[in-house]
Amino acid sequence: MLIEPRVLKGFRDSLPHQEIHKKRLVHRLEDTFSRFGFVPIDTPILEYAEVLLGKGGGETDKQVYRFTDHGGRDVAMRFDLTVPFARFLAANRGELALPFKRYHIGKVFRGENTQRGRYREFFQCDFDAVGPDAVSTDFEILLMIHAALSNLGARDITIHVSHRGLFNRFLDGLGIRGESEYVLRTVDKVRKVGRDQTAAALAERIPAAAAERILAYIGAEGPYETVLGQMVDLAGGAGPDTERLRAIGELAAATGVAESVRLDPSITRGLDYYTGVVFETFLGGIESIGSVCSGGRYDDLVLLYSKQAMPGVGASIGLDRLIAALGELQGLPDTASSADVLVTMQSPDLIAHYHVLAKQLRAAGIRSEVYPEARKLGQQFAYAERSGIPYAIVCGEDERREGVVNLRRLETRENIERRTIEQVVETVRK
Amino acid sequence: MLIEPRVLKGFRDSLPHQEIHKKRLVHRLEDTFSRFGFVPIDTPILEYAEVLLGKGGGETDKQVYRFTDHGGRDVAMRFDLTVPFARFLAANRGELALPFKRYHIGKVFRGENTQRGRYREFFQCDFDAVGPDAVSTDFEILLMIHAALSNLGARDITIHVSHRGLFNRFLDGLGIRGESEYVLRTVDKVRKVGRDQTAAALAERIPAAAAERILAYIGAEGPYETVLGQMVDLAGGAGPDTERLRAIGELAAATGVAESVRLDPSITRGLDYYTGVVFETFLGGIESIGSVCSGGRYDDLVLLYSKQAMPGVGASIGLDRLIAALGELQGLPDTASSADVLVTMQSPDLIAHYHVLAKQLRAAGIRSEVYPEARKLGQQFAYAERSGIPYAIVCGEDERREGVVNLRRLETRENIERRTIEQVVETVRK
Repeated sequence: MLIEPRVLKGFRDSLPHQEIHKKRLVHRLEDTFSRFGFVPIDTPILEYAEVLLGKGGGETDKQVYRFTDHGGRDVAMRFDLTVPFARFLAANRGELALPFKRYHIGKVFRGENTQRGRYREFFQCDFDAVGPDAVSTDFEILLMIHAALSNLGARDITIHVSHRGLFNRFLDGLGIRGESEYVLRTVDKVRKVGRDQTAAALAERIPAAAAERILAYIGAEGPYETVLGQMVDLAGGAGPDTERLRAIGELAAATGVAESVRLDPSITRGLDYYTGVVFETFLGGIESIGSVCSGGRYDDLVLLYSKQAMPGVGASIGLDRLIAALGELQGLPDTASSADVLVTMQSPDLIAHYHVLAKQLRAAGIRSEVYPEARKLGQQFAYAERSGIPYAIVCGEDERREGVVNLRRLETRENIERRTIEQVVETVRK
Repeated sequence: MLIEPRVLKGFRDSLPHQEIHKKRLVHRLEDTFSRFGFVPIDTPILEYAEVLLGKGGGETDKQVYRFTDHGGRDVAMRFDLTVPFARFLAANRGELALPFKRYHIGKVFRGENTQRGRYREFFQCDFDAVGPDAVSTDFEILLMIHAALSNLGARDITIHVSHRGLFNRFLDGLGIRGESEYVLRTVDKVRKVGRDQTAAALAERIPAAAAERILAYIGAEGPYETVLGQMVDLAGGAGPDTERLRAIGELAAATGVAESVRLDPSITRGLDYYTGVVFETFLGGIESIGSVCSGGRYDDLVLLYSKQAMPGVGASIGLDRLIAALGELQGLPDTASSADVLVTMQSPDLIAHYHVLAKQLRAAGIRSEVYPEARKLGQQFAYAERSGIPYAIVCGEDERREGVVNLRRLETRENIERRTIEQVVETVRK
């Protein structure tokens, strides 16, 4: 009885062309992060359920893969990289120099409803700087988001910035701080549902005058300085929060990214644990896909595990969504070549020579493989074409004796005869 | 009530210096694989238990993390990368060009006894070439193992090669094929328990004359050709199996790796599913750590899921063991620098200028970070030293006006004054 080779709903294989593309993207992200002095960490996929969910366990619970292991332990698979980072900080504090700046790219698991096109296993990419509550660090994260996305080939990047602490101060001024949870939840949806529906929702619980001021606050648009001016007015004057936003605008201008940093008071990041700067990132032309990188500053990430607070600022990229977004903008490669050169096997007697040729090519950095059997050359060329390999080498006894090979460019079916390996390397490198 | 930030027994965090080291190693492996035309894939961490364990489920079962998910499915976390590869081949056959050569690096999970220093979450690195049963492919895997380990800085690499099919033929000749399972299990331990204990164990079930011949077979030592001659004799003459081994020896000689390929008939790979060439790899000086890369040729990997056979040859590297082995040979770096240059913050008024300097350095490929606060320079230097950052930049208003910076080499505490950014780049690159 055969077993059906099926995968679980919400899970999927990554085929070579997808995996090559993803690895390239991840390497570029890592390259950017390391240029900013960020270092990688990893944490276990499986942790104590209590550690991941807290003593109680909130709304996420239902989505968490949780079970009892062989030793009777209540365990769960990580559902994000933030909670494990908090646990990591608390556990390894003694070994870390502050400011501690880490990135973490890995799989997370959520038993979500797959009807909304969501996957149950997906990649997150988080980066955080933990240390002093400084504008320099806030800005560094924004600059790094811009550099990382640029390095991936994204153009027209806009990071929408606001300040949760300022928003709270503004709600205090309106005397409706008690409704802040409702307001945050409502305002967070404005981009999706529009201004009218947001107004209606606010009116249900908030006095009309206050609702109007909230709409004015989150609706402010225009140049950075203009919007900041409106926010200062609506919040009842300047403070460290508006000063922070002002300094960020100045740093953006000084470093040449002002065009990509927009003050947008409608960004509040819903019910997340942020307390300072918050931001979301959109790519021009596909704003509808939503934010590809979001985050903010928090007062404390480790309070569940430690009494000593650790403020920080960080962001998260949903890698699968970002890959989809870049694919929509740039087009995705649907084949990926496995090699640059296929050394065909014309004669089985020359098999050792073919492996020597391939070895010489590899030593010059040319990806090369030897076709394993002496089939008809047409079949071997067909394999190369199907695998996206651009060049084939054909070599018989005569060529071997003369120290040359014949090179075939598969796309044009052009044959370049009697080349030395050095000449092949030169041609392929172009 | 605080939650203790503990990790599960057998699981562990990867700190930056460990993770940087591991990523560097993985990138080098990937580089080698891609030079050989191997492409990456990935599969889900979680699969149907039936798919991973078969309808029955054998000895591994007890170690498998298996549970019922929200949808009532019987699921399990992958415990190796071989079974998922077989499932992958059966599921995606239509999209793959043969020969199909893939590598896969990922986490696997086994609830093993941690007392033996084993981890329950660890990294495997598998590579296989599926397609015709050809000597060229067998040899390519051996050559790639040699290249991959060399690329990691390993010296004195010895791949011990044998042939499971030949061993079976030999047992047939002795008329004890029915005891082959017992013999394989016993012979597989000879490296650990020694010749005498193996002889005693064989004597329990095998006639004395046959046991003696088995010991002669697995004990053969010497130059490749000599050992091959003994194997041919003991197995009752040449055959396709001994011809395969002979051809591998010739290819090794022709490609300059003869010193690293040793014929060793004691290699049988126990009860694994291999049918052809089998091999284990040892590093000089730390043979006691065991094989760092093992594998072989199999007739069919997908028979659980498909009627169409898919022969192949492949190998597996236990990454954690390899990292430990290389660490023992080369010494492990115990700090890893997060950046090349720390731009110190001498004056908070110049914060924009510091970010511009860091940006210029990054554009030149220099990893740079800005210290977030205007603390005493001594404190900032201490942070750089603790983080392994070799250079610090100090810049006040005078230097900014003149377009220069002062560069400090932290190890020697040497100050190099009034340098342009171009000069800094040049110095740091050295």
